[in-house]
Amino acid sequence: MNVPNIDTIRQAAERIQRLVHHTPVLTSANLNKMVNAELLFKCENFQKVGAFKFRGASNAVFSLSEEEAKRGVATHSSGNHAAALTLAAKMRGITAYIVMPKTAPKVKKEAVAGYGAKITFCEPTLQSRESTLEKVVAQTGAAFVHPYNDYRIIAGQATVALELLEAIRELDIVMTPVGGGGLLSGTALSVSALSPSTAVFGAEPQGADDACRSLKEGKIIPSVNPKTIADGLLTSLGDKTFPIIQKYVTQIVTVSDEATIAAMRYIWERMKIVVESSASVPFGALLEKKIDIGGKRVGIIVSGGNVDLNNLPWLK
Amino acid sequence: MNVPNIDTIRQAAERIQRLVHHTPVLTSANLNKMVNAELLFKCENFQKVGAFKFRGASNAVFSLSEEEAKRGVATHSSGNHAAALTLAAKMRGITAYIVMPKTAPKVKKEAVAGYGAKITFCEPTLQSRESTLEKVVAQTGAAFVHPYNDYRIIAGQATVALELLEAIRELDIVMTPVGGGGLLSGTALSVSALSPSTAVFGAEPQGADDACRSLKEGKIIPSVNPKTIADGLLTSLGDKTFPIIQKYVTQIVTVSDEATIAAMRYIWERMKIVVESSASVPFGALLEKKIDIGGKRVGIIVSGGNVDLNNLPWLK
Repeated sequence: MNVPNIDTIRQAAERIQRLVHHTPVLTSANLNKMVNAELLFKCENFQKVGAFKFRGASNAVFSLSEEEAKRGVATHSSGNHAAALTLAAKMRGITAYIVMPKTAPKVKKEAVAGYGAKITFCEPTLQSRESTLEKVVAQTGAAFVHPYNDYRIIAGQATVALELLEAIRELDIVMTPVGGGGLLSGTALSVSALSPSTAVFGAEPQGADDACRSLKEGKIIPSVNPKTIADGLLTSLGDKTFPIIQKYVTQIVTVSDEATIAAMRYIWERMKIVVESSASVPFGALLEKKIDIGGKRVGIIVSGGNVDLNNLPWLK
Repeated sequence: MNVPNIDTIRQAAERIQRLVHHTPVLTSANLNKMVNAELLFKCENFQKVGAFKFRGASNAVFSLSEEEAKRGVATHSSGNHAAALTLAAKMRGITAYIVMPKTAPKVKKEAVAGYGAKITFCEPTLQSRESTLEKVVAQTGAAFVHPYNDYRIIAGQATVALELLEAIRELDIVMTPVGGGGLLSGTALSVSALSPSTAVFGAEPQGADDACRSLKEGKIIPSVNPKTIADGLLTSLGDKTFPIIQKYVTQIVTVSDEATIAAMRYIWERMKIVVESSASVPFGALLEKKIDIGGKRVGIIVSGGNVDLNNLPWLK
């Protein structure tokens, strides 16, 4: 498969339309007033498994041939991608093999197990993760589905912006958080095709600013020991997501954890929705005035709402 | 004004339609599975000021004659009704006089002051509240708007169920929380007129079960020292709400605080919406199997979403 274009993205949308939720776009007079702009929140926290990740995962799973599918799918992840891939596999009636560090939080282990995955635990190192995954793939013949560095995943994530642009015309800006870049690259592809005058911004934690540095250097600079409250954004760009971002994204801005936590709390308090820290980074960037948005219409993709309610960042 | 009928309720809906949010009805496959029923949540946590109270308050404020209105409105409340009345008054360009115990939480004082109320503080006793309010009314000539024992308020709250029944047909049951009975009585009036085969249930904290006891005894039994986590439901039925509830409500069920807290947490975790403890009591009743709902379609009115995020009940 090549870099997705608008036709591939529309095919993905059609493939997954009966599987995914068509999520609402919400606004808040309160938050608009805070930043003097019109904010339109595309709420993927209401997506199945609580995150946009289900779009890419279901597009990947339902893109497989019958032959491939019956051997199952595999990935390494302890987060939303693992849950998303497992649920998509369940919907197709195939097995999901998930490699997870044995140190993953109990709540995440249980969530993925609850969706019916076959879990293999590994040591909490990249090396152990990859070698364990290789073993699982060798034994089962399952198709590896990378969390973001995969065009089927990127095309699936691109359907969020497709829906947003169908619902809301004439956006000046669209913003997403950026970790591995699956959501941002997919968003950039949809926006550049359908609304080329709309600027696309990525928002990234200061403590995991590989995407910002990669764009500046013109090559992928992986994160080294990233540290941020936004634990869904620790990963680095991949060789499929980076060139798309380089080509179509206006700018990556970095955000302090303090602003992300304040943003998360405002969204809960004023909009009455539960969003995860990673999903709060774009609004955090606006609180820190990292982008000039005065009087503009700004679409913000709320990436997910999976939160440990015993462990809220403003109570630490 | 007499007991509202469906015409009065429709007039209220028309009066407030440009002032209030038309709130969404949300569902959750997860929660449905937990209780083996189809639950339809009417989300008044997304209403202005974060609670259904804004409907009754705006109906009352915009029902006043020009002559009455220019002297302002007054009430005693430290909660959602105070904020709702103040915002409605602001929209009509008149003054809201709010009597509040000086011991009210700072966050509530600030919220009401933020909407522009003139606040008079009193001692935290019913006697001081009432005498202070009398003084304010005598000095200003403001119109007193009771939080629930007022037909304009009841007609306004009845518009929640009106919208719910317009959106969703063939509900077997509609449930609301019950404190003073404004929401429950209004809901019962709308449902009995528009869908007489639908049963209406009120759900009440065990520690503030005056409505349950009042229905059993056939007369108003006020709460004495009510104690519950659902701090919006401490008040007792009034002489206007009680007869309506007696006539049209199938049953009041009581709910433990443990079930209410569990319900609140499930709603946050699975539905990704912020709801207050008082709003979680009806789903708490279903977790405790207080009503036989197997296979039925159950409308649940989510009364509000105003929560102190520093003070969550499951973290105590």
